[in-house]
Amino acid sequence: MRIGFVGLGNMGAAMAANLLAAGHELTVYNRSPDKVGPLTARGAIAAASPAQACDADVVVTMLADDTATEAVTFGESGIIESLRHGAIHVSCSTISVALSQRLADAHTAAGQVFVAAPVFGRPEAATAAKLFVVAAGPAPAMEALAPLFDAVGQRTFVVSDRARIAHLVKLSGNFLIASVIESLGEAMALVGKAGVDKLEFLDLLTSTLFDAPAYRTYGGLLAREEFEPAGFAARLGLKDVRLLLAAAEDLQVPLPVAGLVRDRYLTLLAGGGGELDWSAMGALAAWEAGGPKPGG
Amino acid sequence: MRIGFVGLGNMGAAMAANLLAAGHELTVYNRSPDKVGPLTARGAIAAASPAQACDADVVVTMLADDTATEAVTFGESGIIESLRHGAIHVSCSTISVALSQRLADAHTAAGQVFVAAPVFGRPEAATAAKLFVVAAGPAPAMEALAPLFDAVGQRTFVVSDRARIAHLVKLSGNFLIASVIESLGEAMALVGKAGVDKLEFLDLLTSTLFDAPAYRTYGGLLAREEFEPAGFAARLGLKDVRLLLAAAEDLQVPLPVAGLVRDRYLTLLAGGGGELDWSAMGALAAWEAGGPKPGG
Amino acid sequence: MRIGFVGLGNMGAAMAANLLAAGHELTVYNRSPDKVGPLTARGAIAAASPAQACDADVVVTMLADDTATEAVTFGESGIIESLRHGAIHVSCSTISVALSQRLADAHTAAGQVFVAAPVFGRPEAATAAKLFVVAAGPAPAMEALAPLFDAVGQRTFVVSDRARIAHLVKLSGNFLIASVIESLGEAMALVGKAGVDKLEFLDLLTSTLFDAPAYRTYGGLLAREEFEPAGFAARLGLKDVRLLLAAAEDLQVPLPVAGLVRDRYLTLLAGGGGELDWSAMGALAAWEAGGPKPGG
Amino acid sequence: MRIGFVGLGNMGAAMAANLLAAGHELTVYNRSPDKVGPLTARGAIAAASPAQACDADVVVTMLADDTATEAVTFGESGIIESLRHGAIHVSCSTISVALSQRLADAHTAAGQVFVAAPVFGRPEAATAAKLFVVAAGPAPAMEALAPLFDAVGQRTFVVSDRARIAHLVKLSGNFLIASVIESLGEAMALVGKAGVDKLEFLDLLTSTLFDAPAYRTYGGLLAREEFEPAGFAARLGLKDVRLLLAAAEDLQVPLPVAGLVRDRYLTLLAGGGGELDWSAMGALAAWEAGGPKPGG
Repeated sequence: MRIGFVGLGNMGAAMAANLLAAGHELTVYNRSPDKVGPLTARGAIAAASPAQACDADVVVTMLADDTATEAVTFGESGIIESLRHGAIHVSCSTISVALSQRLADAHTAAGQVFVAAPVFGRPEAATAAKLFVVAAGPAPAMEALAPLFDAVGQRTFVVSDRARIAHLVKLSGNFLIASVIESLGEAMALVGKAGVDKLEFLDLLTSTLFDAPAYRTYGGLLAREEFEPAGFAARLGLKDVRLLLAAAEDLQVPLPVAGLVRDRYLTLLAGGGGELDWSAMGALAAWEAGGPKPGG
Repeated sequence: MRIGFVGLGNMGAAMAANLLAAGHELTVYNRSPDKVGPLTARGAIAAASPAQACDADVVVTMLADDTATEAVTFGESGIIESLRHGAIHVSCSTISVALSQRLADAHTAAGQVFVAAPVFGRPEAATAAKLFVVAAGPAPAMEALAPLFDAVGQRTFVVSDRARIAHLVKLSGNFLIASVIESLGEAMALVGKAGVDKLEFLDLLTSTLFDAPAYRTYGGLLAREEFEPAGFAARLGLKDVRLLLAAAEDLQVPLPVAGLVRDRYLTLLAGGGGELDWSAMGALAAWEAGGPKPGG
Repeated sequence: MRIGFVGLGNMGAAMAANLLAAGHELTVYNRSPDKVGPLTARGAIAAASPAQACDADVVVTMLADDTATEAVTFGESGIIESLRHGAIHVSCSTISVALSQRLADAHTAAGQVFVAAPVFGRPEAATAAKLFVVAAGPAPAMEALAPLFDAVGQRTFVVSDRARIAHLVKLSGNFLIASVIESLGEAMALVGKAGVDKLEFLDLLTSTLFDAPAYRTYGGLLAREEFEPAGFAARLGLKDVRLLLAAAEDLQVPLPVAGLVRDRYLTLLAGGGGELDWSAMGALAAWEAGGPKPGG
Repeated sequence: MRIGFVGLGNMGAAMAANLLAAGHELTVYNRSPDKVGPLTARGAIAAASPAQACDADVVVTMLADDTATEAVTFGESGIIESLRHGAIHVSCSTISVALSQRLADAHTAAGQVFVAAPVFGRPEAATAAKLFVVAAGPAPAMEALAPLFDAVGQRTFVVSDRARIAHLVKLSGNFLIASVIESLGEAMALVGKAGVDKLEFLDLLTSTLFDAPAYRTYGGLLAREEFEPAGFAARLGLKDVRLLLAAAEDLQVPLPVAGLVRDRYLTLLAGGGGELDWSAMGALAAWEAGGPKPGG
């Protein structure tokens, strides 16, 4: 498959490398060109603009947020203007449900196909091609993209033929992780203040009812207070819960735990912790109980 | 070991049967005597009172709540008065941290030993001797009780030499389950209102970051809205979060998710749902979003 | 003063009438022209477009929300394009803090003056010229506008020379009203369920520590469950708390009660109550406690 | 009237002095006898025990909490044992609804009358005989006690013939004050971070919709960060919200703002602020937004 790839951050660069390794023909673009070298060294072609990356069957975007995604998609020389009829735009970023719908509408109007395929997994998982891909879009595109998804992930979940649903599901998954961080943080604040070792407590949990990656990963970071360097920064955690709350407001669904998590992230950012790992949010419970402020 | 067993509800009867099967000499007592038959048929001796069950090395109590536990322990012909010097009282019930401490103090004063050993697991797990035992108490007693714990559970976690810590850990575990119920309930309310199948959503979760019994069990009940018969009733869920909040107040630890869960259970009970499975609490998020009331 | 007035809803029409009564020369515009008649009958000139209303010293906008305000301000034939150099745009609508800042910047760039002057008071107060005006903007404009504010209100509070601060203060005031609605709703749910008459309870409160219009007005509506017709609709209450939360997020200030109020409004809207008076939100506490759904 | 008075703290001493001033015959008791002198100097008789204070038509208790009230009421030489047939026990303390009911039952069983008469007002109001009395109990007792209530307060509200209702109403009133503290604290954190002067903001509020003592008093303390000495300590604020939540749980009424306030007080106490004025709780919102810790 001829694939254009726009956005070579930690996650994007690893995914692009795996696409190359799987034998796809890859043209890559990144705003800061220094990220491009390692990939061209392995056979990728460097594009001078997002538009150049669109000379492909599929263009993948993996960008920080809505603003960055909008910037390369809409407007002059944007992806919509540049992509040929029938080609596919796959957005792997975690963007808002509203933008996902706008992209679907705009691509459809331009005779193109939009597919949402956000992923679960931290940078290590991206490198190991062990991501989970949550995909949604028209069925024929889903079929065509299967090899692409297989090259970056360990499993693909097709959740709908409406692209925006994949973003809703992805945001819901991130919310569930944040809920784990918060509830573990509360429980650890409590047992910790009573003198229980947090790692032993976590071992008990993950040996029994909570034997899942989310508990092992985030519980471990919390118990060891290991918040730097961030695998996923707190300010991005805030962004995701904001996007979730916006989608929930459109659907008129109150989400009290999400509201609480949002407040927690604001507290963390107000205290200067925006660049800590988002698991640091869970340490605020112990801070309120008289303990030290996470990261500070 | 000569064991007295007081309290033959769903959980207690199954545990007592496993103690018998493991070759222990068992004397059993239950307030309503009809529960005793199946056990005497398998070799247990029926006690006419809790006091009679105390003619043993160890007496185990597995009762509904603080009140029931206090009733058989303190006062005339109670366990403290009846147990011989050096014998052990093992409380497997989920009781308050404060009562746990009172029991430890009272038994110590009477020259006896108190051990807290609450368990994780629903009645099926009790029957299969697959419980997880969270134990705390003096080290020699822990060693002596190992065969007893092995007979009822798949693994024992010794969390402290202070008995009350086992109850704090157990309540914290139940709180984490309730957090799972609440956050899954919120996420399902959201994606469900957007048209996503709840069981498919759950499959995605439990195939990825949330591959744990708590998510499979409670997520399944929630997705299928299978709240009757209750494995663990909502009113008991409320009781446990109340005990957790009381312990947290003593330790001066604010627990906002626990506070939310408490409000949810009150809502469920006010609507007549006290006898539904405690997972029904998670369905309140969808109710607030315009859906049907759980159980009603 | 020659004043253009754009937006003749319940509030705007009453304010415009008071400006006329105070002797100002008034040109009025409304999207649906049927609202214009009663004012031209009293001497106002009808404008065919917002642009025509800009032939004035001051143009006042009193519109439903951000979208409506943006629509008449920016773009071709918008207020910014149409207003003459040095003239003043006074926005009396409750709009977002971010839009308030955008308007200030755009008017400044166009050599014009932007003033924020949101008001407290329900339609009855607008009719009686008893509004409270919360004003912010450059000092000379404040001075020039004093007679205008006096014509519509009983008192003007100049809170800053930065326009957006007036909107922040106004949103904070609305939040405090919503907090009164919620907390009164909770207290009434409690004492009501215990058999206390809600109006007698309210009388006790307003005779003692809570002797304030907010308690009398909203407490009365709540106690009498008098939610129709709406003085201020629940969906607008949701809009205002959303704007507050957005402003608070920009300033990194967590506001847990505001988050709760937002969830309450979503619940009310999800149940079909968006057109009820916003005080109906307070009745959700009794609904959760087993009572009837407000408006349903 | 011959009145016994038990409990001469800040509030009790002032109330007793006003009863004396109104011409009642007063016998006073306090655990630490140094509080008795000023009153005997003005004509009161000193009692050596609560039992001695019961040689009266009415005995008033004004004690710190449930424990103190139980200690003087039940048991040997307690008020119930000591009071003569037909005499009245008036509890002016803020105690739990459950204890209020127990007292009513016990006095009835002893042929005596129990009346609940908690009061609103800080020590200054007690001194000035400007308290508000919230009274409940059998109608004849209410009539008989009118002069007593008039001597200590500016107005009496008879809310029920069931004593416990007065305590429920009193706790609800304290909850509403705490809600004012929390919501004002949030609003001030927000506008304060935007550069608005908190006292000017409060002036705007109390000049308009929030022109009530609760806003003036607590808003002033908050705006001036004047938390010492405490008029009413934070730990007592926590006690009262705990009693409210317990009563609400019995009635199955979820109260989310009360739950939040409880968490806030726990945070304040965990940080060492238990002896600050309870209005300090409102400063936690600014603390979370990056500001200083109240009292620290």
